[in-house]
Amino acid sequence: MIGTRTAALLLEAGAKEVVLYDNLSFDAPDATLRDLCENQRVSLHQGDVLDQPALEAACEGIDGVFALAGFMSAGIAKNPALGLDVNIRGAQHVLQACHVCNVGKLVFASSSAAYGYGAIGGSISESEPFHSAGVPAPPALYGASKVIGEQLCKLYREMHGLDYLALRYSTVYGERQHYRSTNALYIIEAYDRVARGLSPILFGDGSDTKDFVYVGDVARSNLLAMASTASGEAINISGGKPLTVKALAETVIRLAGGTMQPEYRDTPTSGFRITTDAPFFYDNSRARTLIGWEPEVDIEEGIARMITWRKSVTAQTA
Amino acid sequence: MIGTRTAALLLEAGAKEVVLYDNLSFDAPDATLRDLCENQRVSLHQGDVLDQPALEAACEGIDGVFALAGFMSAGIAKNPALGLDVNIRGAQHVLQACHVCNVGKLVFASSSAAYGYGAIGGSISESEPFHSAGVPAPPALYGASKVIGEQLCKLYREMHGLDYLALRYSTVYGERQHYRSTNALYIIEAYDRVARGLSPILFGDGSDTKDFVYVGDVARSNLLAMASTASGEAINISGGKPLTVKALAETVIRLAGGTMQPEYRDTPTSGFRITTDAPFFYDNSRARTLIGWEPEVDIEEGIARMITWRKSVTAQTA
Repeated sequence: MIGTRTAALLLEAGAKEVVLYDNLSFDAPDATLRDLCENQRVSLHQGDVLDQPALEAACEGIDGVFALAGFMSAGIAKNPALGLDVNIRGAQHVLQACHVCNVGKLVFASSSAAYGYGAIGGSISESEPFHSAGVPAPPALYGASKVIGEQLCKLYREMHGLDYLALRYSTVYGERQHYRSTNALYIIEAYDRVARGLSPILFGDGSDTKDFVYVGDVARSNLLAMASTASGEAINISGGKPLTVKALAETVIRLAGGTMQPEYRDTPTSGFRITTDAPFFYDNSRARTLIGWEPEVDIEEGIARMITWRKSVTAQTA
Repeated sequence: MIGTRTAALLLEAGAKEVVLYDNLSFDAPDATLRDLCENQRVSLHQGDVLDQPALEAACEGIDGVFALAGFMSAGIAKNPALGLDVNIRGAQHVLQACHVCNVGKLVFASSSAAYGYGAIGGSISESEPFHSAGVPAPPALYGASKVIGEQLCKLYREMHGLDYLALRYSTVYGERQHYRSTNALYIIEAYDRVARGLSPILFGDGSDTKDFVYVGDVARSNLLAMASTASGEAINISGGKPLTVKALAETVIRLAGGTMQPEYRDTPTSGFRITTDAPFFYDNSRARTLIGWEPEVDIEEGIARMITWRKSVTAQTA
């Protein structure tokens, strides 16, 4: 989702060579990936971030690396040992490969999960600590794994002078939306139900808030971070606005042409929900100052684009 | 340091069998360990927490496990990949072994580093988040690895019903003091210098505070945590008092019979210092409520005991 979009932007910007390194564990190459790879400047290496020699081979002669591989909360819940291995040893392997191959800059995909959940609220800036009291283990482990990834970046900068920026994406949504992001499910699952004539389901009273950022804006932040002289910093890449899940579901219904109302249910006791105690948003003013980024696509436009993409995919496979 | 002390207390308390599992990477078995192992109820397994099959073999038929193995900040600075592996994959392996072997309870050695450093101050209770902004990478990585260890415990309890308590020890000092705990160096290095007629060295003005807890009190907390019906909780095991490093150095001088004053130096720019922005202590009232523990040995008595031990070891090796 973020990787192919970033690669496409790099090609547009005139990159001489783009190497995609992926274990293809989630999907076989689809139309988007095949289209990308038809470009002579693109090569795809099937490899794993846990495979240090393969990673170093792929980083040979590379100017900049975007480290986007990682497990999210739901994946960690299913396989905690592998998830932590990929997020922590994987990050360390990428850093080591960057160091060994003299890569000029690393953009590390961190997450607003680095602030944790639960006792957060209001405007959250980059100095906010990591909250995990009372939070279910999988999202707490995901967030803590991102804290460790960032600190490993810092260690490699302190030890080896490796330049990096850690981008703390909030919940990313848009074209190529997958089902692995617990918070993005509020959009894609709502749309899937509306498309079948069903009401989107909300747990509780729908007043819980999220902060969404459009995938195209995220890809653009990756390029700006890579081109920037800033280094050694963590930066929020976010919509910067709190949005209730109720407002979100209503927006999805409207843009998808539905007429139903969301359906409210009690919060399930099984599984995990990622909630916070108060409305919040991730302050993205540092992104403006440090790398000249701000979000350009608002939630209406972003959801409209996601729906257009979703319809085109459904039409192709129908 | 904590392991042999805990084992000795277990034997005193009438434990039928005590298995010591250690890779002996730091020291060959010394007199204390040899004495322990002469007890027919004690067996020593040389093994590593990264060796899952060996760990499971050692946990066979065991009622309770104390998970004490781990790298601290200084060790992580030297070998970050191995340090994180031991603290994170190691913790996961111990949990898996406890699950597979139906161990009744796990006492997990966490740390007050789980609150991080920097922007902390005052009375710190168990709900305090993890602070890492502006903190050097090694102690931030150490603290985050303990956060992950605790969350893995929580995950195993959620998934498999494994009972555990995570004990967040503050800076542990006392007999068998080693040089791996950055904060405990304020005691042992001060003593080493006084014993040679030199002034203990303090960086800055000596007003930085620490919270120390005596090793015998820590071992006792381990037994109380194991015997308690409490489960799924993190508990501060601390002195519960802020102590300036200046007062500490003066106490060491006085108890060691010295007459010098501490020597003040500028904070070095190389290496890392673990400091906080304000005087602080870790509130240990939950330990009283949940497992009936409070510290019994104050800093004067504890340092006196450490000095007695240190002199006896020096006399033996002289």
